[in-house]
This record gives sequence, structure tokens and C-alpha cells, in this order.
Amino acid sequence: MNEQLKLENIREVLIRQEETIIFALIERAQFAINNIIYKPGGIPLSDFSGSFSDYLLYGTECNHAKVRRYLSPDEHPFFDNLPQPVLLSIDIDSPLMENSINLNDTIRKTYINNFLPYICEGGDDGQYGSSAVCDVNCLQSLSKRIHYGKFVAESKYLSDKEGYRKLIIAKAEDEIMEKLTNKIVEEKLLNRVLIKSRTYGKEPERMDQKYKVKPEFIKNIYEKWIIPLTKKVEVDYLLGRYRVSDVRNKN
Amino acid sequence: MNEQLKLENIREVLIRQEETIIFALIERAQFAINNIIYKPGGIPLSDFSGSFSDYLLYGTECNHAKVRRYLSPDEHPFFDNLPQPVLLSIDIDSPLMENSINLNDTIRKTYINNFLPYICEGGDDGQYGSSAVCDVNCLQSLSKRIHYGKFVAESKYLSDKEGYRKLIIAKAEDEIMEKLTNKIVEEKLLNRVLIKSRTYGKEPERMDQKYKVKPEFIKNIYEKWIIPLTKKVEVDYLLGRYRVSDVRNKN
Repeated sequence: MNEQLKLENIREVLIRQEETIIFALIERAQFAINNIIYKPGGIPLSDFSGSFSDYLLYGTECNHAKVRRYLSPDEHPFFDNLPQPVLLSIDIDSPLMENSINLNDTIRKTYINNFLPYICEGGDDGQYGSSAVCDVNCLQSLSKRIHYGKFVAESKYLSDKEGYRKLIIAKAEDEIMEKLTNKIVEEKLLNRVLIKSRTYGKEPERMDQKYKVKPEFIKNIYEKWIIPLTKKVEVDYLLGRYRVSDVRNKN
Repeated sequence: MNEQLKLENIREVLIRQEETIIFALIERAQFAINNIIYKPGGIPLSDFSGSFSDYLLYGTECNHAKVRRYLSPDEHPFFDNLPQPVLLSIDIDSPLMENSINLNDTIRKTYINNFLPYICEGGDDGQYGSSAVCDVNCLQSLSKRIHYGKFVAESKYLSDKEGYRKLIIAKAEDEIMEKLTNKIVEEKLLNRVLIKSRTYGKEPERMDQKYKVKPEFIKNIYEKWIIPLTKKVEVDYLLGRYRVSDVRNKN
């Protein structure tokens, strides 16, 4: 099996991404919520009609698209009108089935509406640029984590092709979801995220300060959104997997 | 006194920046050193003759320049051919004297030659894009921290104008450096950075794993480079301060 699809390797990647996500959320929490940066036209930009935060995200994606970021099977852009790469073209060898699953619109809405009000102080501190730069890091790390569900799904599928194939043909979404779910792993994950958030969220020599982001809230983010969205990616991927390849190749 | 110039506020900013720097270094340490991304032309880019890492940094700075990042007195670009802002122009109210101090060339060289070999595994893991994105975060956070010396210098100057004025007129660099130096604060800082690096550099439920970046090395970075470069900014700023304003205004 492709190294990238070994379940123990995937778990290591996801565990390491917890640091990236927690660090990014803690960084964003330095600044007020600054709602104006999420309103299209809230800050007038001479060459962009969307929001200020999207402007920075779009600019970042243009920059990263030029160095081929979005040809990688574990990267997904928030925008679709991105420039061509300036690097020589290469064949990217993806261990995944062809698919066009991209939950970034949902991820962005969830981040703005459900995460930020709990992570940030209310109000406006004028730190628009710094806030939006942090948003880019948060959104990119959340997107990467959630779409990694494609690797999880492919790995689990390969470990029991027959079992999944039957459910996929029957379009039995609930049963697929159940078969993908490992409650013990999820519980361990949530507990680990809580402990990490406690450890990273307070300066060690200032244990009387309040947490930069409430650890229970980061756990909550994982429980209510990151895990369910990752599993939605997994189910969508598996349902599509049959359509794309199994009919054609019977492999 | 301007709030931004109160020494206790400046110290809080610098303490908070320690998290940003440590998190950024830990993120970079996920990837191999990937020397090729620092060699101009090492990775051929159709519209850029510099290195791959610089390509991403330059693209990021173009994006950020458009939203006026480099008009802020605490931000300093690595490149000078950057686009104009797309935001309406405003008068930025800087509490600093006019100056053009920018140590970013030194910071970039130091980062590449002196930090990366200790932070990263040797060799090449092909993760060029991810490495370069982390480089941008590391370099921007280091640059911000080191140039914050301008605020430190202005604050200290205002607390003892006469004492500094005499030394500045005499161009007594060593004495200015000595007068700026607070050994007790530096010792506390180094100890705090060491403890933070130990706390953030290891997953709390895996205390047997090795540190993502050696805590002693991060302390070393502060001791050998960040503190001395910040103090160089302070001295340069003070020497220039006299030229710019005191001759003219005697204030």
C-alpha cells in the first residue's frame, strides 16, 4: 500500500495538524473579532468586491497557486479563478481517486460564524491586516485537516473493499458513516486536543493568566465541526469512488 | 506618553511575540532544510530570478503591501519593489521619529544560515511549498520583533532625554548600548523563552518524544541573534533620532 495511505501514517499527520490548528487559533485570538473585515465591501478595495479577509485569502491563494499548491491532492483552494503555475509542470502522483470534493465554502462560513465569536474578543481593535493574515492560516489549516478525510476514506476502503463496495452501491450513507466511525479513536483525539489546548494556550510562567483560547472551545470545535466535516468528506469521497472507478475498472 | 511607547506595554508585546516566533519555528521544523529553495534559480520560475523561498515571500509582501501593511511603523518589508495600496489612503500616526532602518537582509541571511540548520532535519523531503510558507511566517515574525527595537529605543529615550542626547551627540555607540541594556530583563527573557520552548515543543501526552525544536536552541537564537539585532535597531534608531529631529526641533 502507498505509504501515504497507511492508516498509522494518516493518524500521525492528523495528530501533527492539531498543533498547526491550535497555534493558528491562538494567534487569531490576539485580535478582536473585527466583523467589518468579513463583510463584502465593508472595507472598500479598489480592485475587489468581496470582503477584506477574502481579499487577503484570495491574494495568498494566487501566490500559492503559482507554485502549484493546489495540484497537490491534500490541498484545496477557497477560490476557483486562480492563476496558472509558474513552475514546470509535473505529473502529480495521487493515491486518491479522481474527485472534486471541496467543502471550503462550508468551512469558511463555519469559521466566521461559529468559531470566531468564541475565539476572539468582541468589538473592533483596528487590527484588520493582522486578523486577516491569521484567518488565512486558520482557514488553510482547517481545510487541509478536513479534506484529509479523503486519505482516511481511501485507506479504510482499501482495508475492506468488499464491505464498503456493497454499502456504496446501495448508497447507504448512514451505514458508511457508521462503518467509518471509530468512537475510541475520536474520544482519544478529543481528550488529546483538550490537553494540548491547555498546554499551548497559556504562558507556562503565568499560570494565573486566562487561556488565550478556551481549551474546551477548541475541543468543541473538533467535536462539533472538524470531525463531522472530515467524516462528510470521507462519505462523499466513498460515494464518488464507486462512480468514478469501480464501474469502469471493477478494481 | 503615547500608549504604544509605555515600556510595560512594549514588554507585553514582546512577550506575546515569543509565542508567535516559537510557534512559527516549530511549524518550519516539520520539514527538511530543503536547501534548494534558498538558491536563486535552484527551482526555475518563469517570472522570477530569485530563490523559491523568496518568490513566496515576495508574493506575500505584494499581497500585504496592497492592504497597507508596510505603512505601519512596526512592519518592514524584505523587498522594496512592492505595489501601491488598494485601500483608501490614511495618515498613519506613528509615535516614532522618521527613519529608514531595515535589518531584513541580515535577518534573512541569519535565518537561512544560522537558524535553519539547527531547526530542520538535513536533506530534502520535497516539501518546498510548505517549507517556504513557513519561512514567510518565521521571517515576518522575526522582523517584527527585531524592528520593535525602535519602540523600545523611543520609549527609553523619552524617559531620559538628556542622558541619551549627550551620548547621541558624542556618537558614543558603546555607551548608548550599555545604557539601553537591562541584564536582568534579558536573563528573565531567556529563561522564559526556554520554558516556553519546552512547553510548546513537545506534545503533552507524548513526553517521551523528542522536541520539535530543541528548546536550548531557541533560547540560543534569542541570545545570539534576536536580542543583539534588536539592540542594534535601538542604537541605530537613537543615532538617527538626533540627526532627524533634535537638531531641527530641540525637543
